[in-house]
This record gives sequence, C-alpha cells and structure tokens, in this order.
Amino acid sequence: MSESHQELHQRIASSFARQTFMAHLGAALARVEPGLVEITLSARDTLKQQHGFLHAGVVTSIVDSACGYAALTTMPADAGVLSVEFKINLVAPAAGERFLARGTVLKAGRSMVVCRGEAFCLDTAEPRLIAAMQATMMVMKDRPGVAD
Amino acid sequence: MSESHQELHQRIASSFARQTFMAHLGAALARVEPGLVEITLSARDTLKQQHGFLHAGVVTSIVDSACGYAALTTMPADAGVLSVEFKINLVAPAAGERFLARGTVLKAGRSMVVCRGEAFCLDTAEPRLIAAMQATMMVMKDRPGVAD
Amino acid sequence: MSESHQELHQRIASSFARQTFMAHLGAALARVEPGLVEITLSARDTLKQQHGFLHAGVVTSIVDSACGYAALTTMPADAGVLSVEFKINLVAPAAGERFLARGTVLKAGRSMVVCRGEAFCLDTAEPRLIAAMQATMMVMKDRPGVAD
Amino acid sequence: MSESHQELHQRIASSFARQTFMAHLGAALARVEPGLVEITLSARDTLKQQHGFLHAGVVTSIVDSACGYAALTTMPADAGVLSVEFKINLVAPAAGERFLARGTVLKAGRSMVVCRGEAFCLDTAEPRLIAAMQATMMVMKDRPGVAD
Repeated sequence: MSESHQELHQRIASSFARQTFMAHLGAALARVEPGLVEITLSARDTLKQQHGFLHAGVVTSIVDSACGYAALTTMPADAGVLSVEFKINLVAPAAGERFLARGTVLKAGRSMVVCRGEAFCLDTAEPRLIAAMQATMMVMKDRPGVAD
Repeated sequence: MSESHQELHQRIASSFARQTFMAHLGAALARVEPGLVEITLSARDTLKQQHGFLHAGVVTSIVDSACGYAALTTMPADAGVLSVEFKINLVAPAAGERFLARGTVLKAGRSMVVCRGEAFCLDTAEPRLIAAMQATMMVMKDRPGVAD
Repeated sequence: MSESHQELHQRIASSFARQTFMAHLGAALARVEPGLVEITLSARDTLKQQHGFLHAGVVTSIVDSACGYAALTTMPADAGVLSVEFKINLVAPAAGERFLARGTVLKAGRSMVVCRGEAFCLDTAEPRLIAAMQATMMVMKDRPGVAD
Repeated sequence: MSESHQELHQRIASSFARQTFMAHLGAALARVEPGLVEITLSARDTLKQQHGFLHAGVVTSIVDSACGYAALTTMPADAGVLSVEFKINLVAPAAGERFLARGTVLKAGRSMVVCRGEAFCLDTAEPRLIAAMQATMMVMKDRPGVAD
C-alpha cells in the first residue's frame, strides 16, 4: 500500500525536527507535497552578514533543506538523503523580514535525485526571488546511522 | 602607500565581526593573507542535520565567508564584497569536532573575483577534506550601505 | 520605440549565425521570444563520447548558447553577452537522434542575467529531460569587439 | 598485479580515441598520470562564438573530458565513467591559438569521483588561466554498453 499524504508529511516532519540547525535558524517546515517542500524563515539579528542582509549561508541552508526534503519525498520510506552538491545564485540581496525556500524535484533516479530550489522574500505583495539553486541529492540505503 | 598586513587583517576582521551569523555559528577568523582566508568552527549540537553530521548549510556558510573575505583582500579598501553564486561538493559527511574552511583567490578581476574554497575536519593527524567550493564574488563600489 | 518581435529575432539570429561552432555542431536556432530561446540539434557520429552518447560538451554547448541568447533578448540592442559561469546536471545519457535546448531568463539585472536551461531528447512522444543548467551571463557594454 | 603506467595510458588513450567529438574539435590527449589528465587544443575558425573567441562549449568540452579521464585513472580497469554534473567559471575570454585543459582528482570515492579542472591559453610565456571547473563523475560498473 502506498504512503498516504499524512504519512509522507509525518516522515518529512520527523526528519526535519531532528535537524537541530533548522531550529537554530528559526526555520519552519511549511509545506510537503510529493516532489515539493517549502520552508519559512523570519529574519533575526543573529543571521546577518556584514551589510545587514541575511547571510548567503542562511539562505543556502533553507533552500538546501527544502531540496533535500523534496528529494526525500520521492524515496522509499527506509531511505535517507544526503546532499552531494549544489550550486546557488544569490540574485538579489536578502533584505527583508519573511522568507520562503522551495525545493522541487526535477529528476528522481534510483541513486540520485536532481532538484531545483528558490528562495523568496515575502514582504511584498508578489514574492520577490532572491536565490536559485540546482542540487544533487543522494539516496542512502542500508547505511547504518543514515536513515530519515 | 599600500596597505600593511596588519591593516589588511584589521579590515577583514572588522567586517567579519559584523557578520552576526558567524558568531551565531561560533565561527572564528583564523588567518588572513592576501588572497587567502581561513575560518575555524567547533561542532555544536545546534548545527546538525538529521543524521548528526554538521548541516551542509553550516559547512557552506563558513566556506562562503572564507571565499568572500579572500576576495575582499584583493579589493580596494573602500570596496564591499557580495556573493554572486557558488557551487559546493560535500565530499564526505561532516562528522567530527573541529573544522577549518579555507578560501583562496583564483582570479581577481575589476568587477568579479573567482575563488576556490575547501572545508576540512581537523580531528585527525592529516586534515580530512569534507567539501570543495568554487565561487564568484562581486566587487561593490559606490553602493551606499554596502561597504566592508 | 521598442524593438518588434521581428527585430528581436533578427538580432539574435544574426549573432547566432556568427557562432561558427553552432554550425560545426549542426545546431539551429529554433525559437526566439523575450526571455526564451530554443536551439535544435540532430545527433551525428562526430559528436559522441566513448559510449556512443552525445558528448556532455555538445549538450552543454547548445544549452549554454540557448541561455546566452535568452539573456541577450533582455539586453539593449547595443549590448553583447558573455557567459560568466554555469552549472549543468546531465540527468540521463544523451542517447537518441533529435535534441532541443531551451534557455529561459530567471532574473535580468543591469550587469548580470541569471538563466535556467534544459536539454531534451525529442525521439519520444513526450520530450525526455537529459540535462538542466543554471547560468550567469554578463551584459557587455562599450567593450570594443564585444557586440552582438 | 597493479596496472603499469603504460597500461594506464593505453586504457585512457583507447577510450579517448572513441570520443569522436574530441577529434571533431581537433583535441589531443597530452598527458596521463594517476589522478591527472591533460588535453590540448588549437583554435580553429569552426570553434568560435560570435565575438571570435573559442565558444564556452569548446572550452567546457575539453575540461570535462580532462576531468572525466582523470577520474577514470582512479577507477578499476573494467569501470566506465560518466559526467554527473559540473560547474565552470569562464574567467577570461578564450582568445588565442593554443589551449590546454587539465583535470585533477580531488576525491575518489567508490561510486563518485570529484575533480577540479582548469583551461589555460598557452600563447604567452606564463600559461594564462581562462576557465576553472569543479565536476562530479560517476563510476559505472556492470552496466552493459558503458565500459571504457
């Protein structure tokens, strides 16, 4: 029997809750669909780079997690996910208060899943694109200690 | 008169100190040379992903800052630096206690600086490579609010 | 007066015709819209890697040109375009006869344009994704010898 | 018994000779060492982009092949290599007559090999860097039709 939407959400949420770094950033899991995950984040004084924008590493962290979990939605329930590599363009300074990262699956293979991700500032009526990622995620199976 | 090594170190350290996110990670500026910057980090429970390794975003953040500051060492004292884009390969799980990120300048242009970066785990006699980055940094001049 | 669609197509086609390498590959300009360019290619014995698939460099070349020209559609008529950097995932072996590369503009800035690109094999009823690119293109102005 | 240097060179040269696209570019295998491969190329009128420089796709093709073959030197003799993804910065226009691409292995894993590559123009006394790549190569085993 295939996994229900509730079971899928629970599987991702349970792994997300173990990412202590997401809590350290104040990031929250906002949406889980097959092949798509969204994470939200509010700006904090502790997350800045030298000009007062969100640090590129913060933006990258939430888009990477969104891509990783989007990949995980396409994997069997006993598999784990690891980031192999990614590339990100920071297309506008991350100025603002509310941010959303979205990861979507472009191609799900047996051993690797290729994703695209974006980050948006939500302060304006129309979400404003601030970053775009392309990422390769690895399917981990039968690897002790690496399960989601 | 050209900038002394002490002035260079001071210029980078002063900007690094304004990156609140580096403090939030517990990262420290460890070395500044023309075209080369190193940052160190100790593992903390708040910096993990779901399998107990350092989150890819943490590793990325310190390598990005190391590359950005390596680029800044090659820029005029009144210029600021912004990350345009980067790509990172996470070549081994970030398991361990002590980490070092190194950024080096590959090509310094008028408007853009291309860098390479690496992250190492320092727990073993020989530093163990855990990540490799290639990054494009932008030289910001005469942009109010964006100075280092 | 703004450029008509016919003038835009002519501007891109004229530059494409000067890319001798596109002719050497047998690639053809197939579609030009504001922010979108498509290029088609037929497999040839001279374009293979060692296992008989299209060489990754061939796939990359047509997606890079599609992205570069998509970027050029957003630039003033006297500007030239140069590839700053790109990243490509080759998500499936490039086996087949007919291929299409598409470049689309994600964010058009004053000095840089960020694009995404894809390559598809057209042999099946549904185009089959074989590659995905994310690219940074530079706007060249007042640079002698670099005009499109 | 381990492979001799002559056997290693022969294994790479034999696969390179089957890359018809390298011949189509006029590229030649210049050096093979464990973890390092160099390829040379002379500029031709058929390899240009619209401003008269070597097309980014040409530069990318020889650096990708150099990285792929550098990776293959670290693999068992019955394995094949495929490019998973790469990122390249084109740090200077590819103007000139003689070019060299070098691929080196950064990390050789069981299923993936991470490489770095560079392209140089050789027209000047000191080789001039024109491009830098970071690439992920896959080890192919027991896959019919994919052997080197």
